[in-house]
Amino acid sequence: MKSYQELGKEELLALKEKLNAEYEEAKKKGLSLDMSRGKPAVSQLAMGMDIMNALTIESDMKSENGLDVRNYGVLEGIPEARKLMAEIMGVKPENVIVCGNSSLNIMYDTVARSMTHGVMGSTPWCKLDKVSFLCPAPGYDRHFAITQHFGIEMIPVPMTTEGPDMDMVERLVAQDPSVKGIWCVPKYSNPQGYTYSDETVKRFAALKPAAEDFRIFWDNAYAVHDLYEDRSDVLLEIFDQCEKAGNPDMVYEFCSTSKVSFAGAGIAAIASSKGNLEWMKKSMTVQTIGYDKVNQLRHVRYYKDLNGIKAHMRKHAAMLRPKFDAVLETLDKELSGLGIGEWTRPNGGYFISFQALDGCAKAIVAKCKEAGMTLTGAGATYPYGKDPKDSNIRIAPSFPTPEEMAQATELFVLCVKLVSVEKLLNQ
Amino acid sequence: MKSYQELGKEELLALKEKLNAEYEEAKKKGLSLDMSRGKPAVSQLAMGMDIMNALTIESDMKSENGLDVRNYGVLEGIPEARKLMAEIMGVKPENVIVCGNSSLNIMYDTVARSMTHGVMGSTPWCKLDKVSFLCPAPGYDRHFAITQHFGIEMIPVPMTTEGPDMDMVERLVAQDPSVKGIWCVPKYSNPQGYTYSDETVKRFAALKPAAEDFRIFWDNAYAVHDLYEDRSDVLLEIFDQCEKAGNPDMVYEFCSTSKVSFAGAGIAAIASSKGNLEWMKKSMTVQTIGYDKVNQLRHVRYYKDLNGIKAHMRKHAAMLRPKFDAVLETLDKELSGLGIGEWTRPNGGYFISFQALDGCAKAIVAKCKEAGMTLTGAGATYPYGKDPKDSNIRIAPSFPTPEEMAQATELFVLCVKLVSVEKLLNQ
Repeated sequence: MKSYQELGKEELLALKEKLNAEYEEAKKKGLSLDMSRGKPAVSQLAMGMDIMNALTIESDMKSENGLDVRNYGVLEGIPEARKLMAEIMGVKPENVIVCGNSSLNIMYDTVARSMTHGVMGSTPWCKLDKVSFLCPAPGYDRHFAITQHFGIEMIPVPMTTEGPDMDMVERLVAQDPSVKGIWCVPKYSNPQGYTYSDETVKRFAALKPAAEDFRIFWDNAYAVHDLYEDRSDVLLEIFDQCEKAGNPDMVYEFCSTSKVSFAGAGIAAIASSKGNLEWMKKSMTVQTIGYDKVNQLRHVRYYKDLNGIKAHMRKHAAMLRPKFDAVLETLDKELSGLGIGEWTRPNGGYFISFQALDGCAKAIVAKCKEAGMTLTGAGATYPYGKDPKDSNIRIAPSFPTPEEMAQATELFVLCVKLVSVEKLLNQ
Repeated sequence: MKSYQELGKEELLALKEKLNAEYEEAKKKGLSLDMSRGKPAVSQLAMGMDIMNALTIESDMKSENGLDVRNYGVLEGIPEARKLMAEIMGVKPENVIVCGNSSLNIMYDTVARSMTHGVMGSTPWCKLDKVSFLCPAPGYDRHFAITQHFGIEMIPVPMTTEGPDMDMVERLVAQDPSVKGIWCVPKYSNPQGYTYSDETVKRFAALKPAAEDFRIFWDNAYAVHDLYEDRSDVLLEIFDQCEKAGNPDMVYEFCSTSKVSFAGAGIAAIASSKGNLEWMKKSMTVQTIGYDKVNQLRHVRYYKDLNGIKAHMRKHAAMLRPKFDAVLETLDKELSGLGIGEWTRPNGGYFISFQALDGCAKAIVAKCKEAGMTLTGAGATYPYGKDPKDSNIRIAPSFPTPEEMAQATELFVLCVKLVSVEKLLNQ
């Protein structure tokens, strides 16, 4: 099979005509598919309904230390929930605060607090002329939205299969005191599904920041989100490494059960050093009397411990795998060897990342949209929504059914081919 | 009966000796009573347990507009929850956003957002040299904690039985552009249990603020929290009045079900104008993908509507009334005519406010503490914890049993008498 680059102009024109005809046919199907966000499917939510019976009118509503979870108080969360979330992150319970239903909200609050009150006694960021964050890209658009919302300058850092370009991270963090943070999804990264290597984690832990209030925002969103029984990635626990490197206060770790129990009604947590937690609690104790401890207890009563979580995640995996496989099979079959795209094969997480020919991503997403398929906006995976190469597309296979995913990927590869041919013809 | 002021020195000394002996006896009882916070009692929480069965593994998890409450999304809250919270506040559902479990958290976020992003396009407050809030006092300590946390200057405004001193409010708001807000608990105010008169509400709605970003923080925490069947206060709805006065954007109203369902696991809401809500949502959409809609649905399925809420609140009232009555009966019996204290007789809410002789509040609270009874710290009801007259004490009768409340109030009046005698002797 020839790659598209090897085709002559006549061949490309003929191919374009053929693809255009196929595309017109596809449009007639009147598809309506949403692959834009990493949303669990209805089947996954239905599978998790047992948790609704974990607390009933008959239940003992006391946490293991005898506190009534229905009443006010217990800012840090009930002990058994702190333990459960600690197990997920591989940290100690005393380093965990369990909050409400959204880890994104904890991240937002953490940045907001740094803006108005600083970090462990540092100058509030809103009083500084310039604050910047390193943004490994492609990355998670909602991270970038938080920093943009607060006027924080975002500096893209290229991603590799091992994690962010650590030479660049080390240099920028050491040289520039305006660099106050970095957004990381260290396991099954959004959107590529890469897991940071041990070497990368160690280099993170050993950073020598110019700013004393520099923090790593370690969004461990997919800590237990393996897709396959026979292979999964292992992320080195970062706090141990930070201790060893003499940087005990450098990391905030976030996680949630949004993709374990319910996307809208899980529990979320932050892990950090005693120093950071004490500083945070000075604000949190003003912000709220306590998060929803009934939902915390509901989660612990249902999942019990990390083994319970893992058993549950295997059920999710069984539902997600056919969708990922459907995408990968079609991409392999239709695009291998054509030289018009590359894609990742993650062992977990919620996304597949597609790298189109430079300058083609926006056009592919638009073409898909025109035929009834919504993808994450091209560029969304980069700070300010600007993919410098206009090349990255995030595929979120979770929400549609496997059949819809197969259909969707057929349409997707058709659009990739068509836009690529047009691109090559216009060169 | 003579008032204490009419007693001669000899009489006071004899009284002091007698009271001291009683106090030493009281201390021996080894009491451990907490009247410090407006916490629902265990019996109230137990009474509300039916809600735990409102959603089970069998439940339809769709909101009335067909959205799956378990998944991501729906920032404003599900329509039926917006309707329910709107009914409680007497406003339109489209003016309501339903959030998580804490109205305090919404208030904090509202101030935090104003600090970093301003109000409907105004300069962010953190960029201003001075921001101040009017603080009707005595008031709610957690309100004052929020403004203090953000370095906002607090200006106390005296409370009357009709609400805050509106002459002072009108003057300060009109003259001083640094005045950006005022904290109000307009119904069954914390701690006095006063409800703002219609005239007061109308004067609030007709304020002519020097600052375009001045907002009234209308914490309607006790909207449905009547104590008696035969008498209850009615608060004039403020948004209508604001419309009429040409001030549609001047109010944020807050409410929650913390003292309806569970103190730690209710739902909370904010009501405001379209303009304010649109502005807020620009931040909220960055802060979270959505609040816990499962808990929102649980509340609506259980309470159904305002009538359901009111029926439930009558059960709470039946549990709270004997406690309030126990306090009031003892205060009446033991302190009437003695000239050493005045107290409020609220028709609802969670508190009774006690006004001791000037300079006596701290000493009374300390004496109570020494004998095993924890009251809200003296001064807590004033900005910066500073009661200029050292006179106000907040009594929170909800948490102990009626028997404990009777016992506690016996001790309280004893401490009031003792400290008052000492005060009079030292004059």
